[in-house]
Amino acid sequence: MKDTPIQVPQRILMGPGPGNAHPRVLAAQSLPLLGHLHPPFLAIMDEIQDGLRYMFQTKSKYVCLISGTGHAGMEAAIANMLEPGETILVGNNGIWGQRIADLAERYGGKVISAEVPAGAALSLPKIKDELAKHKPAVLFLCQGESSTGAHQNLAGVAEACRAHDTILVVDTVCSLGAVPFYGDAWGIDCMYSGSQKVLGAPPGAAPFMLGERGFKKLQNRKTKVASYNFDLNLILDYWGCFGKRFYHHTGMISNWYGIREALAIASAEGLEAMWARHRKLHLYMWEELSKLGLEPFVEKEQYRLVSVNTIKVPEGVDALALCKNAMDKYSVEIAGGLGPTAGKVWRVGIMGYNAQLANVELVITAFRDGLKQQGYKSRHQIADQDMPNPYEGAFPGNGKA
Amino acid sequence: MKDTPIQVPQRILMGPGPGNAHPRVLAAQSLPLLGHLHPPFLAIMDEIQDGLRYMFQTKSKYVCLISGTGHAGMEAAIANMLEPGETILVGNNGIWGQRIADLAERYGGKVISAEVPAGAALSLPKIKDELAKHKPAVLFLCQGESSTGAHQNLAGVAEACRAHDTILVVDTVCSLGAVPFYGDAWGIDCMYSGSQKVLGAPPGAAPFMLGERGFKKLQNRKTKVASYNFDLNLILDYWGCFGKRFYHHTGMISNWYGIREALAIASAEGLEAMWARHRKLHLYMWEELSKLGLEPFVEKEQYRLVSVNTIKVPEGVDALALCKNAMDKYSVEIAGGLGPTAGKVWRVGIMGYNAQLANVELVITAFRDGLKQQGYKSRHQIADQDMPNPYEGAFPGNGKA
Repeated sequence: MKDTPIQVPQRILMGPGPGNAHPRVLAAQSLPLLGHLHPPFLAIMDEIQDGLRYMFQTKSKYVCLISGTGHAGMEAAIANMLEPGETILVGNNGIWGQRIADLAERYGGKVISAEVPAGAALSLPKIKDELAKHKPAVLFLCQGESSTGAHQNLAGVAEACRAHDTILVVDTVCSLGAVPFYGDAWGIDCMYSGSQKVLGAPPGAAPFMLGERGFKKLQNRKTKVASYNFDLNLILDYWGCFGKRFYHHTGMISNWYGIREALAIASAEGLEAMWARHRKLHLYMWEELSKLGLEPFVEKEQYRLVSVNTIKVPEGVDALALCKNAMDKYSVEIAGGLGPTAGKVWRVGIMGYNAQLANVELVITAFRDGLKQQGYKSRHQIADQDMPNPYEGAFPGNGKA
Repeated sequence: MKDTPIQVPQRILMGPGPGNAHPRVLAAQSLPLLGHLHPPFLAIMDEIQDGLRYMFQTKSKYVCLISGTGHAGMEAAIANMLEPGETILVGNNGIWGQRIADLAERYGGKVISAEVPAGAALSLPKIKDELAKHKPAVLFLCQGESSTGAHQNLAGVAEACRAHDTILVVDTVCSLGAVPFYGDAWGIDCMYSGSQKVLGAPPGAAPFMLGERGFKKLQNRKTKVASYNFDLNLILDYWGCFGKRFYHHTGMISNWYGIREALAIASAEGLEAMWARHRKLHLYMWEELSKLGLEPFVEKEQYRLVSVNTIKVPEGVDALALCKNAMDKYSVEIAGGLGPTAGKVWRVGIMGYNAQLANVELVITAFRDGLKQQGYKSRHQIADQDMPNPYEGAFPGNGKA
């Protein structure tokens, strides 16, 4: 291996994540290491928990970071909330429902899929029907399905779950901080998120919470949690949730410094301001993209996720060539589809530190340029062409001025 | 949560880890993020694999980082190398053998412990006997048992394993880079380490390898790996071991930047120079500590780990008070015991970037000062006191000069 220093180009990451991190977050990761059980580090962990409670809108004691990425949060949720032989009802409208199903099977669960077309989400009546039919131990919903850009409404779901003693597990990896989430008011039993999306920190830890019912489920398990790393009995003990601190694993010191800063930045901005900032840019981007003749993959507006936007690839357009042009020419990432949307859409993230007008303008420019290079004309532009200019020739000499 | 910037004091971490990271490693963690599948990031992953192969002294294709800390590496080893119902023989001379046993049971394995007194290690004849008796599917050994400071010799073990088709899994979390390790020459089938020890990077990823036999075991599994995050079929696919790159989880971008730098630094120094540097400082520290009347917990010199040194707490000395004084007065961490050595020893790490004479001198000073504050006198010092100065009064007027 060569001893030359690492080379890292500057990119503007406007895909579904990771996004760019705030410079203050990156700077924090260069601070000197502390021991993972040293008092100044434990104080930072306490601050992180405060910040998480604010982000989750919860007073729950049981909040922590799961070491690993969003997938680790997902596995922690399944490993702890589902016992072997139990049934999980999976709201499946994209890759994350499928991933949860795979995980649940590994942990010995019985999976029932509530299928939803890609680009849509489950309605509350449909959720109620499925719950009544299957009486599952766990219901999984993904608030922000990043493969399709669909936004799952969560209000009222927990009440429906209560009727069947069903634990509600929610994925907010791509949505937390961009759209409203009310952990306590919505009665969420278990939720995990990601650090590298709207929070604007590097990947490495999954923000996580158990509500009161989630914690009871953990306490009343008949079987030992099958994973050591994801055993919440031990993780929450390290996070001081039971009074003392017990060494479970070595916390991700630098990464948690960064997350502490990201949480402080979010707290200072305030959730309502964050939600508004994301929504405003999302609306603005769609206004401009539709002028280029582009259309959202998610038809119904109520299902459109503001943080991950899926844009239909028009017929005849080479999606990958457009992404490549954006990266090569503007150093900006526009991503392709994933799972059910592979080859069908582009995905644009409006997330966290990157949710700034300048970045959104760059994305629009990259689309305009990429489409133009491929000679693409929208129906609107074609219609304009077919319609002769009524002023053509009307003012000889200056008609085209 | 307050918006004040994070506060991190500077400490010299001379416990069993994390140690301090090289400034170049910390600086790399502030570089801008890249996408986890972007070509420049994949190139960094390739460089990491080159660096790992050098550290492991292997040509194996199957090297990677496991996202998580050393415990994640440990869980990946068990989750993939052991199938439910199989027997694992655990070399148990401290906390890591116990932890592996706990993990193996979670994954449905049958655990047989080869018990060794704390502070010792298994001899090759004893290993051969145990293998012949139990014919286990897996043998686990910890090269550097950080709870006791014992060094397990690994040479010849793999040959003994071959006779019973036993997979050899080795923990080098606290030892890799400080003492010789020859992945290929020693025939290691599966090995994991830690980033925050001798490698001198922050915690967050476990360096990992499968040898040819370990990979065959993975391929020939009858059951699906029970964890998604630790499924090596998927992880190695992300690391490009099967030609393509497949998205399994989001790599720990900043952390891997740091590990890339740590590996480049280690490669530039060279393993033999690293081993010699650690050994020299270990011998020097013991020379000085024995002058203070302190004794090693590990009696036989061949079992003494150079990277984590266990120092017996003399009778009547308050071990915690000495650690507290070291931290308060010198900002230096000296750790207490763990598991079988709790309350019985101090633990001093001589690891990676921290393995510098100045740091070792500070540790010695902290011991000298701490013992003095407690009025401790070694047998040697007491003997000196009991023996009157033979020159006392011999030269009136200047006898004490």
